[in-house]
Order: sequence, then structure tokens, then C-alpha cells
Amino acid sequence: MTMQIRQHRYHPPGTPPGTLVAPAVVPQVPVSMTLIAYDHEAVEEKTLSKVEDCLPYLDKKRVTWIHLDGIHNLEFLSKLGEVFHLHPLALEDVLHISQRPKVEDYEKYEFLVFIRVALQDRLEFEQVSLFLGENFLITVQEKPGDVFEPVRERIRSNRGTIRRSGADYLAYALIDTLVDGFFPVLESLGERIEDLEDQVAEKPSRETLQKIHQTRRELLNLRRAIWPERDAINSLLREESPLISPQTQVYLRDCYDHAIRILDILETYREIGTGLMDIYLSSMSNRLNEIMKVLTIITTFFIPLSFIAGIYGMNFNTAKSPWNMPELDWALGYPLALGIMAAVALGFLYFFRRKKWL
Amino acid sequence: MTMQIRQHRYHPPGTPPGTLVAPAVVPQVPVSMTLIAYDHEAVEEKTLSKVEDCLPYLDKKRVTWIHLDGIHNLEFLSKLGEVFHLHPLALEDVLHISQRPKVEDYEKYEFLVFIRVALQDRLEFEQVSLFLGENFLITVQEKPGDVFEPVRERIRSNRGTIRRSGADYLAYALIDTLVDGFFPVLESLGERIEDLEDQVAEKPSRETLQKIHQTRRELLNLRRAIWPERDAINSLLREESPLISPQTQVYLRDCYDHAIRILDILETYREIGTGLMDIYLSSMSNRLNEIMKVLTIITTFFIPLSFIAGIYGMNFNTAKSPWNMPELDWALGYPLALGIMAAVALGFLYFFRRKKWL
Amino acid sequence: MTMQIRQHRYHPPGTPPGTLVAPAVVPQVPVSMTLIAYDHEAVEEKTLSKVEDCLPYLDKKRVTWIHLDGIHNLEFLSKLGEVFHLHPLALEDVLHISQRPKVEDYEKYEFLVFIRVALQDRLEFEQVSLFLGENFLITVQEKPGDVFEPVRERIRSNRGTIRRSGADYLAYALIDTLVDGFFPVLESLGERIEDLEDQVAEKPSRETLQKIHQTRRELLNLRRAIWPERDAINSLLREESPLISPQTQVYLRDCYDHAIRILDILETYREIGTGLMDIYLSSMSNRLNEIMKVLTIITTFFIPLSFIAGIYGMNFNTAKSPWNMPELDWALGYPLALGIMAAVALGFLYFFRRKKWL
Amino acid sequence: MTMQIRQHRYHPPGTPPGTLVAPAVVPQVPVSMTLIAYDHEAVEEKTLSKVEDCLPYLDKKRVTWIHLDGIHNLEFLSKLGEVFHLHPLALEDVLHISQRPKVEDYEKYEFLVFIRVALQDRLEFEQVSLFLGENFLITVQEKPGDVFEPVRERIRSNRGTIRRSGADYLAYALIDTLVDGFFPVLESLGERIEDLEDQVAEKPSRETLQKIHQTRRELLNLRRAIWPERDAINSLLREESPLISPQTQVYLRDCYDHAIRILDILETYREIGTGLMDIYLSSMSNRLNEIMKVLTIITTFFIPLSFIAGIYGMNFNTAKSPWNMPELDWALGYPLALGIMAAVALGFLYFFRRKKWL
Amino acid sequence: MTMQIRQHRYHPPGTPPGTLVAPAVVPQVPVSMTLIAYDHEAVEEKTLSKVEDCLPYLDKKRVTWIHLDGIHNLEFLSKLGEVFHLHPLALEDVLHISQRPKVEDYEKYEFLVFIRVALQDRLEFEQVSLFLGENFLITVQEKPGDVFEPVRERIRSNRGTIRRSGADYLAYALIDTLVDGFFPVLESLGERIEDLEDQVAEKPSRETLQKIHQTRRELLNLRRAIWPERDAINSLLREESPLISPQTQVYLRDCYDHAIRILDILETYREIGTGLMDIYLSSMSNRLNEIMKVLTIITTFFIPLSFIAGIYGMNFNTAKSPWNMPELDWALGYPLALGIMAAVALGFLYFFRRKKWL
Repeated sequence: MTMQIRQHRYHPPGTPPGTLVAPAVVPQVPVSMTLIAYDHEAVEEKTLSKVEDCLPYLDKKRVTWIHLDGIHNLEFLSKLGEVFHLHPLALEDVLHISQRPKVEDYEKYEFLVFIRVALQDRLEFEQVSLFLGENFLITVQEKPGDVFEPVRERIRSNRGTIRRSGADYLAYALIDTLVDGFFPVLESLGERIEDLEDQVAEKPSRETLQKIHQTRRELLNLRRAIWPERDAINSLLREESPLISPQTQVYLRDCYDHAIRILDILETYREIGTGLMDIYLSSMSNRLNEIMKVLTIITTFFIPLSFIAGIYGMNFNTAKSPWNMPELDWALGYPLALGIMAAVALGFLYFFRRKKWL
Repeated sequence: MTMQIRQHRYHPPGTPPGTLVAPAVVPQVPVSMTLIAYDHEAVEEKTLSKVEDCLPYLDKKRVTWIHLDGIHNLEFLSKLGEVFHLHPLALEDVLHISQRPKVEDYEKYEFLVFIRVALQDRLEFEQVSLFLGENFLITVQEKPGDVFEPVRERIRSNRGTIRRSGADYLAYALIDTLVDGFFPVLESLGERIEDLEDQVAEKPSRETLQKIHQTRRELLNLRRAIWPERDAINSLLREESPLISPQTQVYLRDCYDHAIRILDILETYREIGTGLMDIYLSSMSNRLNEIMKVLTIITTFFIPLSFIAGIYGMNFNTAKSPWNMPELDWALGYPLALGIMAAVALGFLYFFRRKKWL
Repeated sequence: MTMQIRQHRYHPPGTPPGTLVAPAVVPQVPVSMTLIAYDHEAVEEKTLSKVEDCLPYLDKKRVTWIHLDGIHNLEFLSKLGEVFHLHPLALEDVLHISQRPKVEDYEKYEFLVFIRVALQDRLEFEQVSLFLGENFLITVQEKPGDVFEPVRERIRSNRGTIRRSGADYLAYALIDTLVDGFFPVLESLGERIEDLEDQVAEKPSRETLQKIHQTRRELLNLRRAIWPERDAINSLLREESPLISPQTQVYLRDCYDHAIRILDILETYREIGTGLMDIYLSSMSNRLNEIMKVLTIITTFFIPLSFIAGIYGMNFNTAKSPWNMPELDWALGYPLALGIMAAVALGFLYFFRRKKWL
Repeated sequence: MTMQIRQHRYHPPGTPPGTLVAPAVVPQVPVSMTLIAYDHEAVEEKTLSKVEDCLPYLDKKRVTWIHLDGIHNLEFLSKLGEVFHLHPLALEDVLHISQRPKVEDYEKYEFLVFIRVALQDRLEFEQVSLFLGENFLITVQEKPGDVFEPVRERIRSNRGTIRRSGADYLAYALIDTLVDGFFPVLESLGERIEDLEDQVAEKPSRETLQKIHQTRRELLNLRRAIWPERDAINSLLREESPLISPQTQVYLRDCYDHAIRILDILETYREIGTGLMDIYLSSMSNRLNEIMKVLTIITTFFIPLSFIAGIYGMNFNTAKSPWNMPELDWALGYPLALGIMAAVALGFLYFFRRKKWL
Repeated sequence: MTMQIRQHRYHPPGTPPGTLVAPAVVPQVPVSMTLIAYDHEAVEEKTLSKVEDCLPYLDKKRVTWIHLDGIHNLEFLSKLGEVFHLHPLALEDVLHISQRPKVEDYEKYEFLVFIRVALQDRLEFEQVSLFLGENFLITVQEKPGDVFEPVRERIRSNRGTIRRSGADYLAYALIDTLVDGFFPVLESLGERIEDLEDQVAEKPSRETLQKIHQTRRELLNLRRAIWPERDAINSLLREESPLISPQTQVYLRDCYDHAIRILDILETYREIGTGLMDIYLSSMSNRLNEIMKVLTIITTFFIPLSFIAGIYGMNFNTAKSPWNMPELDWALGYPLALGIMAAVALGFLYFFRRKKWL
């Protein structure tokens, strides 16, 4: 999901709700389905080839985490829907990859949609859908390429409290990873804004304007992603669902805090961005001013002088006095005059180049 | 209803409420009234010529959907009002075609107003009014031309859960169709905005400005339509009316979600639109800058040179030296000078054409 | 009440509350006081010369409507206050003609202030005050000239449900008349905005700017009037006063709906107005651009040519060749040159006139 | 308290709360302390030299109003604090003269801070603090100079209901006086804005800009004063304090209404102020346009003419024809040419003066 | 914490929550840990080298305040966490120095984060974390350098009510110190804004723009710090935690009041800042206007004069009359003409210097 303008997928109006349609562009890599089942004593990892293979792991004592690495395998999804009694609307939302982050309560499970962000050449967004049940968690990632490896590592190595907690804590850990993923992106954008501030102050160009515009748009897109993410976490906090233990709520509050900080930084960047635009414009008009000044000064200097020269046609009588235009009688008078003109022209050329007007 | 400026219909102030007045412009096509009655076992379709013909179908077991394809038949409407005990104010709103989307609870039935949107040459809006009772649904469409055919098809072919659900689900299905109808319009607008972005960056013209202005106005109109639509769906969700079953509420929640996404995209477009305006203006002032630069440079080059030439009137004594203006004595000196002038003038002409200033 | 800047009437600070002061400018026409008493069977109309004359009509069975056509008769007002036990603060507000629309609950009666709007040469506002009791309604209009004639006509001719309803329905009918009075004003403003759009696009002038400014101010004033009007109707809906029956509440809901639609249209107009301002400004800078372009092109063409002409002083030796400036020896060379100059000057004159720069 | 930028008094951070510090600038006049005790039968007035002198007047039957005319007598204040058990924080706020208007409930009494506004050369703000007890009211005014004389006069002459009401009504009367004091200030500002509108339309100057800026800042300051004043009155209305009787609440509602109207007018002025700024800027750029137009026209006229003149150097052979530049042989040709030049120059001088460019 | 753009610390996404990591830049000074235990009778002060040394002081009768002067000693922090059962998430927030001010309730204690602000060369922010228990307060300051010395002094000298109150009052006293620390910063900024207003009015330069931009950014950062601080104090007031006594709540209300006043002043400054930007821009365009005016006037004066001079080439026949250009025959005609030119040029030079254009 790149969340460019116009990239919002939709069914043709009138399609029955809950219809599962495969994404238009299907990646080469097949969807892999992995399972991790753990309690505080042991971890078991397995790659599933059929959904039914997960059934033996579903008991109350362990947390079972099923992860789908891609959404282009409709069979896996519909089978999961059957096995875990997932609502067709929720499954449809898993496939409709431009969802807003949200939390939906379906009694037996919570359906969560979150967004992963990454800044490569440009901002990349990816939808991650979670089904949180009493003792299981199903996660579906839009694009192949695992982003939850650090959490999986924590489970394997039994770091932190993850192995002693339930599926709700696992869900928290994943959400936290996704939310914290905004920070490096913000850092990069922050650096870019600082660069732009320097550029605008020193030598603003048409390209600078384009970059300011692009950065503002990316901030807009980021905000569009993190704002509902914040709301979603907040509704998890408020809902008092039996699926989420009070211990995990404390952690979610921390996560909510991070989301607010991200929003805070975003808003500041946005205000700075607006300020940059103003300074760019004033910079431009400043420059116009400077050019006009030079133009005025030159015109003001030479126009009256030319007028005086014009009046007399400079036909002073050389016969009357040696002071009257002796240059006209010099042997090299003409080349000398041409030379002075060339020198003046070259002088201006140098001056303009240094001012970067040429 | 085209929702242009000033196209809001109203009675003269002081008219008694509930007065039914036919629309000013009456389409050629007569209003058609169709009925579909269905349960999970069978479907019956019929074109009604009188309202009373629907009476036999009105029993508790089946869902009866009466659809009016146009509003210019007052007799049908007032008769419907009698048969189903519809409030005169609601009937008046059916005819007043610039209503905001809304939900009004009249105990025995819910009165819903929604907007259908279409983008042909320009944005077209159409009002659709719904009366949702316990086992019936009456829909009235502003302009002839059926928009609910896909839903009717689903009923006939028994796709999805529509045949096993009540009138509330049918109402949902229609609302969903209307709301989802915003997506293709948004897609077209998104494409247009992208085009405008390219135009503004490359060669902005007066026409570009007009198009930006028009697009912003259309976004404004769209927002004016979808915003109350969102509120209407939300109040359906919140109201806990006995007419809407919990199963249907889950679907309405999905529909509400779509409305929020549409608003989200709209807001983003609006912000981009504002940004475009800024860039357009800065583009204009940029251009002024460039012109001024050229003007300055030329003036700066030639004014002092002309001054020097003026001083000496270039009357150098050709007798004193062969270097002093030998051109004046050449046989073709004058034509040559004229030729150089012509060459310079043509050169500038070419230069300006290439810069698109001429 | 014209609601111009600074036209807000006030007592000197420190005046005791409830002091009745006559308006500064008193119209020639004396205040007329009329009474209509009606039930579903009969209507009685009467012009009152004393307030006490209304006493016989005040019984529970009939609705009694007393209407004052002007506020410059303090005796009528204070007598009404005595007879109906009206609070001095409310009476003071009747006279203070720049009140905001509002609803105030005084247990035995509701005190309502609404605004009537009319667009003649410019926006005219008029305050209408209503006292709604159990079986009576007192209305006081700021300026002579009856605005409620259509409602009176409905009572006389027994159209609609007005004769079968109580004083609350009468109050609704009047409020509805006032609120619906905004629509024709909006329509006129809408037409004016469309005209302005055309003007801005085609040939914006200083006058256009003035008109945009004026229109925006009128929209501001309209909004200032309708916004609290909406709130007032809403508080009538919410208050659950025993004076307002559930049947009338349904009608008031419709009226509230109209107020929201008016606000909606107003906001759209305001946004379009802001857009117009932007386009006007960009139009101006566009024009500057065009002028600069012409200036640059002319300068760029002629300055170097003049320079070349200046160098040679065009003193080519006519003796050396017949090609060297033969014009100088023509008998009519000078008149010809002057003629060419005149032709060029007239050509420019024509060009400027066509461009509307002169 | 002039509420200029930076004029906010504060203790050094870390000072214990409730520390009373005299204001930095102490007026010459000593603080006068007056007492009025009244019931519906009698009024007693007295100037107090010691706080203890008020004790005999403090009984339940009468309303006792103690007024301090200045804040530079710490002894009076701390003694009052002792006698009436006032909280040190409240006393500190009396001295910290840049408080926001507020209402604080200290069980035995309400502590109110309000702002008096006056427009002399510039906006002047003054803090008035009120302690409202069951049967007493203490008021402290920031600067010497009595502003409550009209209310005192009402008490003496037994006008209105003030003598028959309690301390709460007295407090209302004072607050009403303060709030109504905004109206004349608004009226002056309204007149000033109308003047500015005329100036901007006719001949905007640098000074106009300064005045617009100053007016906007004063509107900002006014708003900063009246906004919390409104909130304060509202919290008095909502709080249902036993100190405020229902009768007085009706009057406070009226006062709240006035505050809202003031805010309303302020917001309108602020929007008009913003509009003025826009028109000023567009006026400026309009002017630039006009100047550029003149420049272009002149240049366009003369540059090609000069070029033609330059080519021929106007060396037409006077011998060939009497039409070729006979002026050169006139006796007064040169003075005539100089005369024409002078005439042209004077003509332009007159033209520029009339255009107000010189 | 300097709260520059991009200075937000974060763990790599996926790190387990509650991981304590030392700050990247560690100051030279070691972290000092001090303890003050007091009741109304006695004060005991001690510098702790180990966290366990505080245990003897922890009894119910006294208030124990432990202060850490820096965050780069992880051992102290984790030991404190053990001894006082502090939640790992709270400890992590102590180290993550770009937290927003907040209040978090952990049943046994309240965790508070506040911000200290100081204006040296530029705005400096420092995070202060507080753990408020029933009879203890732990404070951790981000950077070495004690800011609470005035409060400590109040404890030692038994000024105010601090010694007779509990740990909640101590916490209030510290928060109050931090909040009041905004006032001197605001005062400095206010002075700077006044300077900028003068500069903009008199001689705006590119540097002025930079300063306006910087000041606006600092106001933005201040607002970002004080806004959540206000919310934090408010949630302390609302929460009705058993840890905070009603007496202290009255003081916190005062503190809340200060925060609101700070925000109020900030908002006013921000609006003035925006106004400054507008005036700066209009100042610039004003200047352009003035330059264009000069340019136009000069051009308008001399171009037609030059044209006339050009026509005649000023070849008036000196032989015909003594009035025809006698200067051409003067002995010093040429030097005189050059001299006049030089004089004109120097005159302009002087004029431009005085106008500050050169």
C-alpha cells in the first residue's frame, strides 16, 4: 500500500459485502504461513502448508501466533476464516489494503488494523491486520518480507516478560514495534527539513519548492496514518475488553504515549513546513527586490548621463580648445572606446555570475 | 440535484409545512414504480401502476421493496403517504431535492435521505430517500435511471446473505452502494489533481488556475455531501432502533468505516489542492523574477555601452588612423550594420519563442 | 437593526437592569397592536388600542396571538409586561434591538428572539421577539411593516393544521417563516457570487475587489444571525419544555434542518468567497507578469539595436557607395522618418487600447 | 495593568505561594477604603481608616460592601485577609495584576477577578477583584479612581431592586457595569475600523498598515480579556453556589448574554480586520501594477522612436530639400528644442503630483 | 533535552519495553543523589552514595525527598526501581528524555514528567521526572545543576507551610517552580518580539525574517512544552488520587491558573508573530513599490527628452544664431559637460546611500 493519491482499492459499488477478491498485482513469492506456539516453558515453531495444521497447537495453555506473509493466497484466508470463525467483513478488510488503522470488536476476538511505515526513496506504507483471540493471535502482512523478527527473537530467547504473558501482550509487542517504526522515519524527515531550511535561507531554487511540497505531502500522509492509529490504541485502552489484561493495558498506555509524541513531532514539522513555504516566497520576492534595485540604480545613473551626452551630440568644437574631446583625434581612439565597452561588459558578466543570476 | 451555487429549492417563506409541490423541471419519462417482495425461498417482481397494488405483498414474512424512479408523480407519493402513514414533512423532504443526508426517526419507520454522486462532465448529485419499516422499504430516487440494479441482481441470484436478512439489511445494501459510489469519483478527482500537479510544475497557465479552482469547489461539494452522510450512518448505529438488527449494525459499522475513509481522502485532496494554489502563485512570481532578470541583464549590459558610444558620438577622426571606424568608409557599411541588427532581432525572436514568452 | 459595524445599542454602563428606554430613531407610523384569537372552529381578529382590551380573549380554549408592529410605544410594552407578568430583563431585550437570537426559559413562558433578514440594496436585519405562553403568543417586531401576513392568512383560511394546534405550533409557524426568509437572500447572494466569479475570471477591477469584500462581510453578518438561530431552535428541541408539544417538536426538527442547510450553504459561499479573493490576487499578479513581458520584449529588441546604431552614429560615408544611407539624401527623408515614427506610435496606441491598458 | 506585551508580573520561580508583594510602581494617592452598609430601609456610608472599623457593620441583616481604591496598601489587604479568613492565594492574586478573569470557590466565599476596560489614547485594562460572602462584598480595584459610582448612586437613591436584594445582586450589578464597559470601547474601535476601511480604499499608506496592525492587536487584547470573563460568568451560572440566589441567576444570565454579544462583535471585527489587511496588500500590488503600466507605455512608445531617430542620426541632408530638418537652421532652433524638453518635463511633474507619486 | 528538530530519542523498534539504556552523551560530573527528610520539627539532609542508605528515613511520619542530579547512572535508577517498586516503563521514561509532560497513575505512586525551560542563547528544555508516593518524593533531573534550591531553602528555613504539609505539597512546590520558570522566558521573548516589531517597522532586513522565523519556532516549542504541562496539572486536579490532599488541590488550582496564563500569553505572542510576518512581507513589497516609482519617474522624465535630443541630433546650426548651442564652441565645453555628468552621478550616489539602497 503506497497511499499515493488515488491508490484506494474498492469493489465496484453494489458488490455484496464480505466478498474476497485477490489483490490486482500479485507478488512472485508465494505466501508463507508460520506458527509459533509458546508458554513460559517452551517454544515451538513451524511453517504451515495447510491451515488445518495449526489445530493441534490450539489449546488454552499456550499462546499460538499464526503469521501470514502476504495477502495473495485467498485459500489460506478463507480457511482461516472458517477455522477461527472470522467475520467475512473483517477478512474483506484484510484484503482491502488501504484501510485506516482501527479496532473492531467481534466479541470472540478483536480485529485490529495497523500500518507499518518505512522511508526508502519515498514513504512506503504497509497494512498489518491482527486477529486477537483469547489464546491465539493471527497476523496478516500486506507485502512479503518479515517485520516482526525482533519480537520473534524475543520469544525464542525469552527476553522481557513476553513468554510469561498472554496473546494480548504479544499483540501489544507487535503494535509497539509498528508504532515505534515511525520514529526513524520522523528522524529522516527531520533531517530533510533541516536541509530545506538551509537551502531556503541560502539559495532557494524551484527544486527547493518541489521538495518542500513533497515533504509536506509526506507529513500529511504520515499524519493520516498515525492519527487513527492513536485512536485505535486509545479505544483498546478504553474498551475494557476481557481479552486484554490490566497488565497489558499499562503497556498499551505507554504505546499510546508514543503515538501522541509522534503526532506532536509531526504537527511541529508541519508548522515548520508552512513557515518554510512563507520564507521561500519572501525569499523570492526579496530577490526580485534586489534585481529591481540593481536595475534602478543602473538606469538612474546612466539615463540622465546619456541625456546630457545626447544633447550635445558631443559635437564640441575640437578646434577651439585642446580640452574639447581630444580622444577623437587620437590614433587609437576607436579601438580604445571599443575596449572600454568590452571591459565594462565583461565586468558585468563576472558580477552576474557571482550573483548567480546567469 | 446538481448542487451548483444557488440551486437550493425552497417554498416561499410562510408556506404551510408538508405542502407537496412538483419539481419545476419535469423529465419526459414517466415515473415507474417497481416492487420486489422476497424471502429466503422466493422472489417476486412486479411493476406497479397503482400504489394500492402493493397491498397484497405486505405481510410479515417477506421483505417488500417499493422503488420509485423519479419524483415528478405527486399522486404516487401522496398515496404512498396514506398507505404507509408517512409524515407529510418527510414526503415534503422527498420532493425538496437539496436535502442534506440525514436520518429521522418516526417511530413506525425511519426516514433516511442519502446522496448519490457521479462524475460525468461535472459532479452530479442525486437525492435518494428511503423509508425503512419493519418489513418494507420504500426508496425514491430523484432522477429516472436505476442505480440499484446490482442489489436487485443480488436478490434475484440469492448471492450473499441478502435473501436471508430483513428490510434493514436491504437498506444497508443500498446505502453501501451509494457510499461506495464515492470511490470512483474520488479516483477520477485524484487523477485530475495529479495532472494539475504536473501542469503547475511544468507550465502553469491561467487555465490551470481555473481548473484548480473548479476542483477545489468540487471537493467542497463532495465534502458537503459525505460529511452529513457519515453523521447519518453514525446516528443509525447509535440510535439502537428496534428496526435495525445487531447483525445489520455490524455491516453498517463497515459502511461507516468507508464513509470515514472517503472523508479522509477528501481532506488530503483538499490540503493538496491548497498546496497547489500556493505553488501556482509562487510559480507565477518565479516567472516574473526570471523576466526581470533578463530585463536587468540586458539593460545593464547595454545602457553603459550606449552611454560611452553616446559620449563620443563615435566621431573618431578617421583621418588620423586606419583604426578609427574604418567601417564608415566601407562600401557596404550601412547594409552590414542593418544586417547585424536584423540578425540580433531574429535571434531574440527565436529566444523568446523558445522560452514561450511570445 | 441594520447590524452594520458599531450599530449595537447599549445603556451607559451602570444603568439598572430592566430599564426600558425608547429607541433613538422613532418611525412616523404609530405602533399598531393586533389580536387574533382562534380555535378549530372560529377566528376573531381585532386591532387593540389598549393592552387591557385583550383580557376577554384570554381563556384556555383558544390561542390568543397579540402582535406589536414596532417597538416605539413604551406604554404598550410595559403594560403587556404587567398583564402577562413578563420579566423586565426580557422586555429590555425587546427594545435592545441588536440581540442575538436566543431562547430563554422563564417558567411560565418562553422568551424567544429571532432575526428576520431581507436583501434590498443591502442586507437588512430586523429583530422579532416572541413570548410563548400556554395559550398565548405575543410577538413584537422591530420595524413597522407586517411580515407574518402569510401565517395570518393560513389561520383565516384554516389551511394546514394550524387551527387545530396550540400556541406552540403558531410560534413554530412564525419561526419557520423567519428561517425560510434566509433562502431568497441566499439565492440573491449566490447569483452575486456567480457574477463575481465571471468578473474575476474576465476583467477584474478595483471595484470587483470592493464587491468581493462587501459580499464576504454580508455573508459574515448572515452567519452571525443564523448561527445562534440554529442554537436557539436546538435548545427549544432539547429543553423538553411543557409548553411545546411532541407534535410541534417534529415540526421544529424540520425547521432546525432548514437552519442547518442555510448554514451549510453559507459556509460553502464563504469558502468560495475566499477562493475568489485568491484568484483576484493571482489575476492581478498575472497581469503584472504580462506587462513585464511586453516591457522586456520591447526593451530586449531595441536596446541592442539602438546600441549598434549609436556606435556608428550612422555616419556611413554616403560618398563611398550608393548603399550607404541613401535616405539621408532623399528630398523627403526627414518627413518620411517622422511619418514612420508617427505610424509606430499610433500602432502602439491601438495595441494598448485593445489590451485595455489605456 | 496595560496588558502590553511582556507586562506580566510574576514572583521569582520558587517563591512560596501566598507571598504578598507590593506593586513596583506605587501611585501617589493613598488607598482609600470605603464601606456601604444597606438594607431596604437605610444606607450607611463611611470611609474606613482601619479594617477593624468595619466589624460593627457585619451582621446578617444588612449587605456590607467594602471597597478598596488601589492595591498599594499591603496592610489593609492582609488585615482584610485575617478578618474575613481570605485564602493567601486569593490575596496574592489581588496583587498580581495581570490575572485572567476567573471565579474561584473557597466555600465560605467566592473569589472573582474581572477586568475593566477603557479606551483613552490606547486600550487600558484594570483588574477588579471581588470577594463575595453571604452578606458582604469586598472589592479591590487596581488603580485609584472610582468606577462603581453609578452603582453606589443606585443604592443611595434606591433605584431598581438593588436595596431589596442581597450581596449577590450587588456583585452582579458591579460585574454588569464592568461587562457593559466593553460596549463604548467596541463602538470606538468600530468607528476606527470604518475609518481604516475608507483609508484603505482611497489612499493606503504605510501608516494605515501600522494602524491596522495596532487595531488588530487591541482586538486581540480585548478578546483575551472578555473570553475568560464570559467563562467566569458562565461558571457562576453553572456552579449552583448557595451564595447566589435564583433571582440573581436570571440577571447573571442576562450579563452572560452581553458577554457573548461582545465576543460576537469582536469576532466580526477581527474577521473584517483580516479582510482589511488583504485589501491593503492587494491595493499595494494594484499600485505597482499601475506604475508598471505607465512605465511600459512610455518605454514602448519612445524606445522604437528613439531607435529610428538613432539610425538616421537625423543627418538628413538639409541641402537636398527644404523639408529636411529646417529647424536646424532656425535662429532659435536650440532654445526651442530646450523649451519643448522643459515643457515635457514640467508636464510629467504635474502628472506625477496629481497621481500622488511625488 | 534541547528539543531541536529530530532530537527525539527512541529504541530501535522491537526492543522489549522497560529496557534501561544510558543516554548517548554522558556528562563528566557524576550523578549526585541527595536526601532531605523533614517534618514540622526537624530537617535532615544527606548525600547518598548507595540507594539503600535511604531506607532508615522511610517512615510514615516524615516526608522523604530523594533527588537525583542527572540520569547517567543506571545503577541508581534500577536500584530505586527495586526499592520503591517502580514500574520499568516509568523508569524507561525517565531515561527517554524527550517525553511530553504527563501524569501516570501506578496506584502506589504517581509518576509525573515535567519540563524545565531556560532561555540562554537559545531555548533549553530539561526533563524532570517525579515519583510521588504517600510519604516520599523521588525527583530525577535530566542534566546536572540543581534547579530546586529555592524550595530546599524554604524547607530548611521553614518558610511558608511546606514543613507542615506532606509529600504532595512538596511535589506541588516543585511543579510550581517549574511552571513559574516559564515567565522569565516569556518576558525575554516578549522583549525580543517588541524589538522585532521596531525592526520590521523601521528597516526590515533578511536577518529580521530569520529572527521572526526563529522566534516563532521557539514559541512553537514552548507551546509544545506547556500545553501538556497544563493537561498534566489538570489531570492531577481531576483524578482525586488519595495521594493528593484537598489542601494541596487548592494550590494546584493556582498552579493550573499560571499554566493557563502562560498559554494565553503564548497564543497572543504567536498571533503577533504571524502579524509581524505579514507586515514584513508587505514592507518588502512596499519597498519594491518605492523602487519602481523612482525608476518610473526617472525613465518617464528622460526618455522623451532623450528622444527629442535624438531627433535633432542637436545639430543646430551654430552659424545661424548665437543661441544655437554656443556651448559647443566654448573652450571648456567638453570638460564642463563631463563635470555635470560626474556631479549628477555623485548626486545619485549620495541619494541611494541615504535611502540605504547601496
